Amino acid sequence: MIIVNTGDGKGKTTASIGQIVRALGHGFKVCLIQLFKGEVFYGEQNILTKLEGLDFFSYAKKHPYCIKGVALEQVNRECIPAMEKLAELADSPKKYDMVVLEEFNIALRDGFIDKASFLELIKKLSQKSDIVVTGRSAPMELVEMADLVAEMREIKHPYQKGIAARRGIEF
Amino acid sequence: MIIVNTGDGKGKTTASIGQIVRALGHGFKVCLIQLFKGEVFYGEQNILTKLEGLDFFSYAKKHPYCIKGVALEQVNRECIPAMEKLAELADSPKKYDMVVLEEFNIALRDGFIDKASFLELIKKLSQKSDIVVTGRSAPMELVEMADLVAEMREIKHPYQKGIAARRGIEF
Repeated sequence: MIIVNTGDGKGKTTASIGQIVRALGHGFKVCLIQLFKGEVFYGEQNILTKLEGLDFFSYAKKHPYCIKGVALEQVNRECIPAMEKLAELADSPKKYDMVVLEEFNIALRDGFIDKASFLELIKKLSQKSDIVVTGRSAPMELVEMADLVAEMREIKHPYQKGIAARRGIEF
Repeated sequence: MIIVNTGDGKGKTTASIGQIVRALGHGFKVCLIQLFKGEVFYGEQNILTKLEGLDFFSYAKKHPYCIKGVALEQVNRECIPAMEKLAELADSPKKYDMVVLEEFNIALRDGFIDKASFLELIKKLSQKSDIVVTGRSAPMELVEMADLVAEMREIKHPYQKGIAARRGIEF
């Protein structure tokens, strides 16, 4: 099954963390591949790394639109091992019940990973593992391929009142 | 801060679990009060009960619209201790950084808990703890009071194709 969490509202990453915790609670094996999440410390990293049954990989920790002075070329280069990891999972015998691809929608939107290659890999991988892809701006072809798509819509957010992101809430 | 996860799509409960894991990862104290979640075993319960810093309460385990033969009167009665727990938190000195109220929107919608009393309690409690309220059909007064509201919209779901809920995905 391919699940997509997209939209401009809060809950895409937290829902994928909840999904991981739910799957691990059933004794499933889960692989989390994260992009663009290395600049601040996310509270969940502290817990996830200690849970049995989860392998956790993080690539391209800085996104150029969030962090100034990050060269696009560098991000392109840093996304290569993420795609290599995905290809390894797609081409090997089943290792995980669930594979979570955090912020891959952003990498697709911004052209850091090739859409056609990505879709081919997850199509293959989905025959043995459930896949969760998160990030706003999910490409239409991924939405079409997916079995379950949830859009997190922002109805109201403290950002709108100029309140900054808070520890334990947004990270 | 009052956060509301609502809407008809997947991700409300998993996002609140992710939010709990994120907060615990920062060393915060969290209280989870769940309604209507006792009939099936949710994978996350296995993990959450082992995490340090989380107190976990579950009331009114059966919702009459999901489980046949559950008397409304019984649900009404079983929601009383949930509201008493909430009142205890609102009236005592700060014990938790975050209080998560799972499926309380449903209890409000169906009249199992009194809306005016609930809003008064969370207004008071929000002065010392962040509050997350989940469940579809959040009442308008709660949306107005909240600082952050995310609507999980169902774009596509396997239910639509007649595929049943799966272990590790929906529970």
